[in-house]
Amino acid sequence: MSTTNRQFVLQSRPKGMLARGDLQLKETPLPELKDGQALARVKYLSIDPTMRVWMAMDSYLPAVPIGEVMRALGFAEILESRHPDYKKGDRVTGATGLQEYFIIDSTAGQQLIQKVPKIPFVSDTVFLGTLGLNGLTAYFGMEIAAPKKGETLVVSAAAGATGSIAGQIGKIRGCRVVGIAGTDEKCDWITKELGFDAAINYKNVDWKAKLAAAVPNGIDMNFENVGGEIMSEVLELMNLHGRVVLCGLISGYTKEDPSLASFGTVLVKRLRVEGFILLDYAPRFMEVATQLGQWKMFGKIKDRETIVDGLEKAPDAINMLFTGGNIGKLVVKV
Amino acid sequence: MSTTNRQFVLQSRPKGMLARGDLQLKETPLPELKDGQALARVKYLSIDPTMRVWMAMDSYLPAVPIGEVMRALGFAEILESRHPDYKKGDRVTGATGLQEYFIIDSTAGQQLIQKVPKIPFVSDTVFLGTLGLNGLTAYFGMEIAAPKKGETLVVSAAAGATGSIAGQIGKIRGCRVVGIAGTDEKCDWITKELGFDAAINYKNVDWKAKLAAAVPNGIDMNFENVGGEIMSEVLELMNLHGRVVLCGLISGYTKEDPSLASFGTVLVKRLRVEGFILLDYAPRFMEVATQLGQWKMFGKIKDRETIVDGLEKAPDAINMLFTGGNIGKLVVKV
Repeated sequence: MSTTNRQFVLQSRPKGMLARGDLQLKETPLPELKDGQALARVKYLSIDPTMRVWMAMDSYLPAVPIGEVMRALGFAEILESRHPDYKKGDRVTGATGLQEYFIIDSTAGQQLIQKVPKIPFVSDTVFLGTLGLNGLTAYFGMEIAAPKKGETLVVSAAAGATGSIAGQIGKIRGCRVVGIAGTDEKCDWITKELGFDAAINYKNVDWKAKLAAAVPNGIDMNFENVGGEIMSEVLELMNLHGRVVLCGLISGYTKEDPSLASFGTVLVKRLRVEGFILLDYAPRFMEVATQLGQWKMFGKIKDRETIVDGLEKAPDAINMLFTGGNIGKLVVKV
Repeated sequence: MSTTNRQFVLQSRPKGMLARGDLQLKETPLPELKDGQALARVKYLSIDPTMRVWMAMDSYLPAVPIGEVMRALGFAEILESRHPDYKKGDRVTGATGLQEYFIIDSTAGQQLIQKVPKIPFVSDTVFLGTLGLNGLTAYFGMEIAAPKKGETLVVSAAAGATGSIAGQIGKIRGCRVVGIAGTDEKCDWITKELGFDAAINYKNVDWKAKLAAAVPNGIDMNFENVGGEIMSEVLELMNLHGRVVLCGLISGYTKEDPSLASFGTVLVKRLRVEGFILLDYAPRFMEVATQLGQWKMFGKIKDRETIVDGLEKAPDAINMLFTGGNIGKLVVKV
């Protein structure tokens, strides 16, 4: 077993996209395990837009302090344990940090450590995506949207890990679902594989007209992951008393200016806009992961992943989120 | 009786503040009354920020067409009637238009005509303000805010006709109420007369620090009438899961750019922002006006008005809203 750990430490707060050196790869000796601790080997790291927020500023969680290991969710296996709740070979997800090894201790709750089962024919990364952060986020967001049969849902970043599941939940709930994405390949995936009713490539010059044409009855719900111009356009097409579930504002995360949009439409159309953060729903994670697992088993939810190989590529992987390089769940294989 | 009517016609859509000539005063002959019509003399006109929106663009109502009489709410008395529902001497409120006389016809419902009683010792203008547009708006907005005893409410444009009542309803509901206004006189009125717990003059350089100090437990509810910088500052001080009732965005009405603010805080603080328009609540107007009347009678709601004398001053009165010239309800006496 290796006695050194490789870890990404936050060296400077990014402006715009991550620059070389914002995250710095360091080798540190693995400390000796104490009573009440378990050592885990990280196998996959979840790469999520919110990481860019954690690097830059205090938000729903404090910013990662400069000089500390970058916060990240991951999937890991226990290598050695002196902790009563974990034994060698246990598989866990949690806030492992952007590193090869991490130590579970008495703060396992804060570390969000969850033991997960081995499911035949299912990739381990499902616990980071469909049955983890993204599936749960999509589920609770759609609960806020409160879809009624026959209503129209528009999802932005629709080929992303969260948006793709949110749209499929919309279909399960009997809605017309239109996704917005940035490549024809993504648009094909969400319509042909996932069953979205329509997909709009926002990089086409006539995307606004196409979006309007794709929602003949207007938009009742917006599952919003992007913000900025895309959100503004969706708001313009919303029906009176529509619901906007504010899940993410990725278009603003790499800008100096925050993501601005007009509240005028919210007023005139009597919209209800609700921001939400997954952590608030922690007591219901197991219940909902079970539901998502059933949907996945019965083929009602499909997923896809983009795997980047090697811990050292993690900063490039984070940037990939902002250039639209991934389809579905983006993970780094450590 | 006069046989001519003086009316303000929309000549051009304003950019910024109203310019001379955007509204043009015209004399037109009064048409002869037909069966099913009643002629009313307008006594008071309600001057409201939303009029600026009606002049500029389609919103929750279509824009006033160029060349037509400017839309306005007013209080009037029936002079002559060939309409089965109205008789000479009846007192009504409704969308009279910015003019001296108007004709009620079979579209009385669309004209929003309501008969109102004569109440001893109470000014007729109360039916435009506390028991009309503003009181109703404040009431339904506070219903959306869903105040709980001991919570903190912040109201912007707090010395305005709507804000002053919204804040007093907050006090009736047992909340800590902080108002934001633009002069010391307004701040004195809402604290000393209306019972607000604190008032912040946003024209003082240190207003942001004072606002923060006035809400030691954070802000649970924001009754928002202003938008822009004031709204952004309030959002920053809101508690998790706070409620924002979006009633108006007056800071943006006279600008070319719409009123922009960041949705980032809405997301991070998991706020619920809800836009609303009074017209949606029409079926409950009588019920709520009765409640407001009781509160007024028992001194739980106090009001004040700024009266501008003469129909010809109506355009100046509208501009007064945007320079903060009025305290309480602004009316034009015709």
